[in-house]
Amino acid sequence: MPGDFGELTRTMSAELVRDFAAISGDDNPVHLDAEYAATTRFKRPIAHGMLYGSMISTIFGAKFDGAIYLKQSFEFKRPVFVGDAVRAVVTVVDVQDEPYVITCRTVVEDATTGTVCTDGQAKVMLPPPERA
Amino acid sequence: MPGDFGELTRTMSAELVRDFAAISGDDNPVHLDAEYAATTRFKRPIAHGMLYGSMISTIFGAKFDGAIYLKQSFEFKRPVFVGDAVRAVVTVVDVQDEPYVITCRTVVEDATTGTVCTDGQAKVMLPPPERA
Repeated sequence: MPGDFGELTRTMSAELVRDFAAISGDDNPVHLDAEYAATTRFKRPIAHGMLYGSMISTIFGAKFDGAIYLKQSFEFKRPVFVGDAVRAVVTVVDVQDEPYVITCRTVVEDATTGTVCTDGQAKVMLPPPERA
Repeated sequence: MPGDFGELTRTMSAELVRDFAAISGDDNPVHLDAEYAATTRFKRPIAHGMLYGSMISTIFGAKFDGAIYLKQSFEFKRPVFVGDAVRAVVTVVDVQDEPYVITCRTVVEDATTGTVCTDGQAKVMLPPPERA
């Protein structure tokens, strides 16, 4: 129901970012090469948006058995630097019956300061809840 | 300019899906366990949406030096099964000056049939092009 939520915290370690670059094929040096990153507006290596974006999907998979992902949007507001810990938070904002579809706000924030790095929304279809 | 595009084709092999599950932490058995998947509406293991969704980001990183990801939306229309090859296609639909922001349609389609599995839109900020 609205207000229900799930969360997950992870550190975007250099090893995790390297592994994600290898898996995704996105080996842009802004993620991997501190010397290159120093020449960019970011000054330091940043994590892939889709790496911490995936934490939202991980929360759905862990929290809701049989969830079917319908939509996801991301607005990347601030970079996440390699080494930073982030918290992904999914909060149910709307529930629709038949089919049983929940709409959620999906946020990735700095785990220390709470600053929102990525904001977004997801729609997920779930098996109908058992009624009493 | 509008109509410009980039594309990338990959096979969602069982090994790739296992690796993505390990990296993302999303080890939902619908992705990993054929016996479990047989009990779901999908009947067979499906790839993670964020795995093939990441191909869009990989195209931006490869095609546009210095690209800054602002927004991405995904609408998951059809599942992608483990073993299927998919093609991600990014097509520029709008270009805005100062800041130089391109809006793109982002599609992931079955590489054999061309059926659209995931549709979406992205906004990316680029360094201004050099003028003659």
